[in-house]
Amino acid sequence: MAEITNCPGAFGSDNQAGVHPEILDALARANAGSAPAYGADELTQKIEARFAAIFERDCAVFLVGTGTAANALALSAMCPPHGAILCHEEAHIVNDECTAPEFYTGGARQCAVGGVGGKPDLVELEQALKALTLRGIHSVKPSVLSLSNATELGTTYSPSQLAEYGSFARHNGLRLHVDGARFANALAFHGCTPADLSWRAGVDVLTLGATKNGALAAEAVVFFDPSLADGFAYKRKRAGQLWSKHRFLSAQFDAWFEDDLWLALAGHANAMARTLAAGLRQVDGVELPLPIEANEVFPVLPDGMAEKLWQQGFQFYPWPTVPGMVRLVTSYKTESEEVARFLSAVQSL
Amino acid sequence: MAEITNCPGAFGSDNQAGVHPEILDALARANAGSAPAYGADELTQKIEARFAAIFERDCAVFLVGTGTAANALALSAMCPPHGAILCHEEAHIVNDECTAPEFYTGGARQCAVGGVGGKPDLVELEQALKALTLRGIHSVKPSVLSLSNATELGTTYSPSQLAEYGSFARHNGLRLHVDGARFANALAFHGCTPADLSWRAGVDVLTLGATKNGALAAEAVVFFDPSLADGFAYKRKRAGQLWSKHRFLSAQFDAWFEDDLWLALAGHANAMARTLAAGLRQVDGVELPLPIEANEVFPVLPDGMAEKLWQQGFQFYPWPTVPGMVRLVTSYKTESEEVARFLSAVQSL
Amino acid sequence: MAEITNCPGAFGSDNQAGVHPEILDALARANAGSAPAYGADELTQKIEARFAAIFERDCAVFLVGTGTAANALALSAMCPPHGAILCHEEAHIVNDECTAPEFYTGGARQCAVGGVGGKPDLVELEQALKALTLRGIHSVKPSVLSLSNATELGTTYSPSQLAEYGSFARHNGLRLHVDGARFANALAFHGCTPADLSWRAGVDVLTLGATKNGALAAEAVVFFDPSLADGFAYKRKRAGQLWSKHRFLSAQFDAWFEDDLWLALAGHANAMARTLAAGLRQVDGVELPLPIEANEVFPVLPDGMAEKLWQQGFQFYPWPTVPGMVRLVTSYKTESEEVARFLSAVQSL
Amino acid sequence: MAEITNCPGAFGSDNQAGVHPEILDALARANAGSAPAYGADELTQKIEARFAAIFERDCAVFLVGTGTAANALALSAMCPPHGAILCHEEAHIVNDECTAPEFYTGGARQCAVGGVGGKPDLVELEQALKALTLRGIHSVKPSVLSLSNATELGTTYSPSQLAEYGSFARHNGLRLHVDGARFANALAFHGCTPADLSWRAGVDVLTLGATKNGALAAEAVVFFDPSLADGFAYKRKRAGQLWSKHRFLSAQFDAWFEDDLWLALAGHANAMARTLAAGLRQVDGVELPLPIEANEVFPVLPDGMAEKLWQQGFQFYPWPTVPGMVRLVTSYKTESEEVARFLSAVQSL
Repeated sequence: MAEITNCPGAFGSDNQAGVHPEILDALARANAGSAPAYGADELTQKIEARFAAIFERDCAVFLVGTGTAANALALSAMCPPHGAILCHEEAHIVNDECTAPEFYTGGARQCAVGGVGGKPDLVELEQALKALTLRGIHSVKPSVLSLSNATELGTTYSPSQLAEYGSFARHNGLRLHVDGARFANALAFHGCTPADLSWRAGVDVLTLGATKNGALAAEAVVFFDPSLADGFAYKRKRAGQLWSKHRFLSAQFDAWFEDDLWLALAGHANAMARTLAAGLRQVDGVELPLPIEANEVFPVLPDGMAEKLWQQGFQFYPWPTVPGMVRLVTSYKTESEEVARFLSAVQSL
Repeated sequence: MAEITNCPGAFGSDNQAGVHPEILDALARANAGSAPAYGADELTQKIEARFAAIFERDCAVFLVGTGTAANALALSAMCPPHGAILCHEEAHIVNDECTAPEFYTGGARQCAVGGVGGKPDLVELEQALKALTLRGIHSVKPSVLSLSNATELGTTYSPSQLAEYGSFARHNGLRLHVDGARFANALAFHGCTPADLSWRAGVDVLTLGATKNGALAAEAVVFFDPSLADGFAYKRKRAGQLWSKHRFLSAQFDAWFEDDLWLALAGHANAMARTLAAGLRQVDGVELPLPIEANEVFPVLPDGMAEKLWQQGFQFYPWPTVPGMVRLVTSYKTESEEVARFLSAVQSL
Repeated sequence: MAEITNCPGAFGSDNQAGVHPEILDALARANAGSAPAYGADELTQKIEARFAAIFERDCAVFLVGTGTAANALALSAMCPPHGAILCHEEAHIVNDECTAPEFYTGGARQCAVGGVGGKPDLVELEQALKALTLRGIHSVKPSVLSLSNATELGTTYSPSQLAEYGSFARHNGLRLHVDGARFANALAFHGCTPADLSWRAGVDVLTLGATKNGALAAEAVVFFDPSLADGFAYKRKRAGQLWSKHRFLSAQFDAWFEDDLWLALAGHANAMARTLAAGLRQVDGVELPLPIEANEVFPVLPDGMAEKLWQQGFQFYPWPTVPGMVRLVTSYKTESEEVARFLSAVQSL
Repeated sequence: MAEITNCPGAFGSDNQAGVHPEILDALARANAGSAPAYGADELTQKIEARFAAIFERDCAVFLVGTGTAANALALSAMCPPHGAILCHEEAHIVNDECTAPEFYTGGARQCAVGGVGGKPDLVELEQALKALTLRGIHSVKPSVLSLSNATELGTTYSPSQLAEYGSFARHNGLRLHVDGARFANALAFHGCTPADLSWRAGVDVLTLGATKNGALAAEAVVFFDPSLADGFAYKRKRAGQLWSKHRFLSAQFDAWFEDDLWLALAGHANAMARTLAAGLRQVDGVELPLPIEANEVFPVLPDGMAEKLWQQGFQFYPWPTVPGMVRLVTSYKTESEEVARFLSAVQSL
């Protein structure tokens, strides 16, 4: 692919956008003076209260630098080494995190099922549970249900949909984990409270990602039942995920939450995706099989169109779910001009 | 302990200093435009060549966010799960990284020996090797020798001293790892080349830390024999240590190396330590059992003095090596006034 | 289920049969006098040569007590923690060994595909490889192809079929593992040499099981390229799989190989399965969708028949592959009368 | 070393003795008929009750084939991956089980201290605890105290001594594990009840070894608080430690317990050790620095004597604890003539 900087339209990933200026400024502010290391600093001491206020509930919060670490650490606190993590076959933990879940859990297994729009089908989940329990200790012990909200296919769970999975998990003795790398985008779409989209719907542990939505490198593991977090500080440390200059993790979340910046940024990215989709719907031969709810658009393009767009310098990935499908991701930084340029290029092909 | 910010003297750790302005500026510069994620960006593509120039040799370089991750990942590439890592009993990997080395290597064991000034005694190493091999497969297989340069006690290895350990390792079939969290301080002290203090002395893998010396969060695993790095990109990914916005790791190293900033910062920290030590030597009842070669000073204080200094707001840790010993760490940011205030407080007690 | 001992027909598993008298006798013989522990005994010293003679090739051989240990240890020598093991979705390593493969490999992942008769479909394997490599280090690295011979569905690979998979593995940079818990049954069916059904067809490591075929507890990991076994003695020890009174493992294999007892026992079990199948084919409403090549028969029974047979005391398991399918396993010990009783019961229903 | 079978005196290890005839007979008896696999057989169903009767308390019991597996599995149920296992520096888990404890616990660390006669010194344990907790999550979390009874140096804990360690463990939030590879020898020496030497003294989990004392391959993990065993059946399975023909494990314990055979065999071995020691005490230049309480004797021999005895065909190992020390192990099978021959050889040197 061509150089992405200054390309006519960078829709490869929200990770390709840099850091929001407010967050860079917060890093500079946090840099004043010395501060105790490893999370004993003032900013970090206050961050848990901030999460508690936002989620309307006491919670144990641990910050780390990457989404893979956040997910894998969360799972390691929820699943024994002989356990199974049920999830959708397009989940990030299945496809994009190498064997991090296995590594961190000490060898637990992911059991992936199908389902429309990136959401695991409840009937298939039921069948998977049955197959696993049929063989008892010869198989793996169903332990966790992990969902992504927003999903890997740009769809989202509403509070009531999520609660259905929460209820399924509870009835089957499973803990419920949500990979919230794009939680802000789901939240912005549904306009509900963070509590509605997490513990009120039965979520035990949320990994809340700021990196894709304007931060430099900042992810949180949020335990709604703090007793689940027993020993977690050790787990993070032994994973090499405890930053020594920890204040710079907290400063990112601090700025991200300030004045609801996180929702504003996610809302912008979502809006850009809607504009993109609306334009694509006008184009003959382009199909949009999935609803547009967050900051990802998955059009199926006519033969050869993707290649031509790449030649013109547009950035995006092919997506293996359906032949001809590509993935366009918008970010907090996507500009209307980029969207317009892309749509105009598509229309002229 | 009291609030560290604006305290009369913060000697708790070099981790308590923030980020050097040049490095913050580099982050802001790197923020322009979009960039491919996960290390495919332009800055990262050039960073390996920069390391090669500095170390006068092709090397495979992997950047991560924490020193514990860098050490544990490096060891996982050098030591099988049934192997032993020989090191000094005060090594950081033994005392300060929880069970990260065990976690990353899949269960290898550290065999720590004594030795003056934080350097493993060669006779004790020899004895440890004998004891381990005596029981064959019932014991663990000696695989790696790991040294810290500078050591945890503020001493350093010269190129020739290091080469002695390099030769010991080679003759005993061990790989040689150096924990270089304070490599720049050792380099500044000896005034030699990075090559002299690494591969020319027999070092196979160096973990080079920038965080304690002015960076925000940036550590490098440097393989001098790139073939050792086979599969390492997977290892880093599965450990949750691959940053998505990777350009911000590279930007830190870029600025750190620019115009030898790393050496200047380390040189300043070393000089502050020397001044501190020189002042302490004048004080009756204070002993300095260790040579001052890097940015750490380990005085043995008279009974009760540490407590009084803490009450006055000075920041430093007690150190368990010798009764009454405390550790004073200077950083790139330590000011002469802080040192003077501390010395004056000590003198007046 | 009812008591199995003295039941009218025990077809639950070949594990339910006890130890062949020749092997019990060999244990008693091996008991004379003292012997060095941990495999330094005389019997063990000779066992490797015995394997070499049988397989017409130098090989490194390690004996352990269970099939799960043999498979998981073998895989741990072939697959890195970030690797993928490709196999059939009905493989024993997938369904019947809890998370042993993950545990022993340090977190590698099994990628299971479909395929007729328990054999992975080559086209599906190709697609799985493509999907895994598409995402590079974000996914897992294809490392091993693992087959069962005989398969979990009672079918077998002929030397030429196996060679096709061997060639596939070699062309794709995969190591080839065979789970030979019922290798003797496959061998007896094809009447070929052990070499033809292993390394000559491209097999790198074979786990050869004696337990299901007359031994008490004895399984071998056989490396056809001894260099692959580097460090394996440590791996076995740290897994708690090195018997102290190791001569009793070797004695079992010794007696099992003597006068081709292993082939005779497997041949008998296979013959009993053929008789069983021949009888079932005569019964209206019973279907046998799979060829009978080893010691397992998988009839699809008419509704309610299985329940009635269980009530009469016959022992066998339902099998989830197809609705109504059950699994009947014969063993070295199965008597013609048991088969006749079962067939007569089926006919009268 | 020379061939051990029929050597004039085999004192290398109690592992070198074979299987007691009663236990071989029990294997043959258990072989009648078919039996459900994986522990669902009749013998296994009754074995837990037998343990409960012997230990005067409900307990959860899991049988495996090797002592290393029993110890490592037990520790994995008691210690988190970030935990520390405190023990004596001569413990079997430290010196003779490769990295099995690390492997099974997922990376926990052993912290070994000194102490007279193979028993960890309580003051040193206290200091180790302090050092570990001083650095909080940067160090490892003290979790388990593991003792061997009898110890690796042939000494034993009486019920009251053991209770002192039990109390130490309880007061420090540690679980207490006992490696009972030679538990029967300790029991025979003290003539107390199994309960007195286990849970009544505060032991949480006991690994009870039969192999060194007459069995073929049979070890038990005994949980006195069955709730601790939650998930343990999965752990055993994934470790490849669940025998398919499980009745042959149970049959060994059954025969071992019958008519107190275990105590008779251990008593004999102990008596042989006492005779050996009594004879050695008469020899000028031979020292016996340790009390003789179980079936091991550790004389310090005059220079050159060991070599001469080896040349005459006697079997025993040098022991590194003290220069010149060797280890003589007696077993259930040691004959008075062997002891007499050895003593006569020593006297004539």
